Formats: sequence, structure tokens, C-alpha cells
Amino acid sequence: RLRREVLFFPSQVTCTEALLKAPDEAAAALPNCCGCGLPHSESSLSRLMRALLAARVSLELCLFAFSSPQLGRAVQLLHQRGVRVRVVTDCDYMALNGSQIGLLRKAGIQVRHDQDLGYMHHKFAIVDRRVLITGSLNWTTQAIQNNRENVLIMEDNEYVRLFLEEFERIWEEFNPT
Amino acid sequence: RLRREVLFFPSQVTCTEALLKAPDEAAAALPNCCGCGLPHSESSLSRLMRALLAARVSLELCLFAFSSPQLGRAVQLLHQRGVRVRVVTDCDYMALNGSQIGLLRKAGIQVRHDQDLGYMHHKFAIVDRRVLITGSLNWTTQAIQNNRENVLIMEDNEYVRLFLEEFERIWEEFNPT
Ligand SMILES: [Zn+2]
Ligand SMILES: [Zn+2]
Repeated sequence: RLRREVLFFPSQVTCTEALLKAPDEAAAALPNCCGCGLPHSESSLSRLMRALLAARVSLELCLFAFSSPQLGRAVQLLHQRGVRVRVVTDCDYMALNGSQIGLLRKAGIQVRHDQDLGYMHHKFAIVDRRVLITGSLNWTTQAIQNNRENVLIMEDNEYVRLFLEEFERIWEEFNPT
Repeated sequence: RLRREVLFFPSQVTCTEALLKAPDEAAAALPNCCGCGLPHSESSLSRLMRALLAARVSLELCLFAFSSPQLGRAVQLLHQRGVRVRVVTDCDYMALNGSQIGLLRKAGIQVRHDQDLGYMHHKFAIVDRRVLITGSLNWTTQAIQNNRENVLIMEDNEYVRLFLEEFERIWEEFNPT
């Protein structure tokens, strides 16, 4: 049975540290052991992070805004594990305070951005050319914790193909060379 | 076979007058007869309008921003035809110039809006409790004509159920009485 899910936000504020540890460390971590004082239950944010962290081969991100530190660390972790990460973003938001884009670039992740007047307003991710993650959510802490938002997680060949084509079109169009 | 489609934007600017006419008038209308000078072909906007105008019983709208005159006319037309239209929107955007929300209210359509700090950032519609329309697109001419956006159109019982539940939660929460 193919995965078909929706996450609604705002997300409860939960600790996501265990997700960002190596599997053996995470298994050893008991609830609350990090002493952060936050709940260690599942939340829409932790589910979104799990869906991303399942990547083994490739991750395409097409995001208007990206400033969530947790999601930024998840993407950097995938890059460190050898997943091929490519990011497309909007230049207007990229320059704002708190954007993760500079950190991703410093970590060696490929990022391209638009130059034109219209916004690159997509908010989607494609995991291993198999799962599409898309919705209304910009990847910011403000949106995650405060806004009414939706994110679909769909294992769907046809949608993955169509969104990958859109990603590749934008990737080529934003080629700076 | 259940409908499963995605519209990408920006949309070509096309004439959508024929869609907003009564069926007999539209059938009589030849291409270009309205003399507007715009192409009369299909576009992402015309496909979105067709999906909405297919409503016969009910239409739920949950929209952060709604200023497109064409989409506003489509929604008013459905209301005139006796479709039960309910609109939820964000109060911050509602007050802006060009918002369709005031016109919808004047036409007698039920509208509710949030009061709190977080944004009501959804952009979805549910047609006849059968088709979910959701994506990154705010219903503004700026977004339709200039932005990179996606809109999924899905005939999917499970997703419709989950999004209807979210709509009803918000509808009750935004009840002013
Ligand atoms: Zn913790
Ligand atoms: Zn025309």
C-alpha cells in the first residue's frame, strides 16, 4: 500500500534531537534524556523530518522560504550521508535574516535561485524520486509553530514524475552559467 | 478512473469569459468573439476555474489570499446557482486592496476569518465533497501570472475527508458568535 498522508500545522513544539542523531545514538536516547524540557512525542514537524530523513539517494527541494534550523540540520545530515541534495529557492527570501540557505551552501550543498520578478513560490520536496512532499508550508519556524498549514506526503509515481520535471525545468532555468 | 492532476503556474494569460457565461451562451460564443485580444486557449487558470465551476452542491474555500477577479466571479456564479459556498480566509490579507472577500460577503456568501497571530495559510478548495484542490497558489492575479506555483486537483475520498475535517475545525474556531 502506497503512502498517502497529510500533516496539518501548527505543529506542537516537540524535541527533534533524537531524529538528528546517528541511529545507534538515537536508540540509546531515552525520552527526556536531553533535558530540554520539551515533549518528546511525535508532531507534524517530527513526521515531516522523518519523511525527509528517509532519503538514501536523492533529495530535491524547491522552497520559497527556508529558515527552520531543525529542517536545515536534517538536510545537512542527508548531505553528509552522501544523499545528492539539490535546492532551488527564491532570491527575495534567501537574503533575509535566519535563512538556512547560506549554511547549506557553506556545507557544500548545491543551491540555485531565481532572478526574476515573480516568486519561486513552490514548497515541495522529492525523496529518492519516490515520495512527493508538497503543500502550503514554508520551512520557517514561524509557519511550523503558528500557522494553519498542510503538507501532503505521497508515494505516487505520476505526481513524482510531474514535480521532478518541474524541478528540472527550474534547475536549468536558474543555472547561473 | 479518479482524477489526479497538477497545474503549474505561472499561467498563460488567457480569456476566461466563456467559462463565466451560461452554458448556452458559451456554446454560441466563437473563439475571439469577445474581441478582448487575449488567447482563448486552455491555461492553468482556465483549468482551475473549470474544476471549481464543476461544483453542483457545495464548495469550501480555505484561502490565505483571494484577490483574483476571475476566480471571484466564478465563486459568485456558483453561489447564484445555489451551490452552498463557505469561505475561510486570513484577516491580515482580507483588508488589503483588491481583496475579493468584501464582494463575496456583499453577494451573500458566508465568510469567516481568523483573529489570531498565526496566518491561516492554507490554499485549498473542496468541490462537492468529492474533489480536493490544494497547493502553493494564493488566488491573486500576481501569483497566477508571475509566480512558480502548483495546484493539485485530486478526486480522493481520504484526502477530501481529512481536509473537510480541517475545514470544519477552522469554521467552528472562527465562528464569531
Ligand atoms: Zn529533548
Ligand atoms: Zn476574450
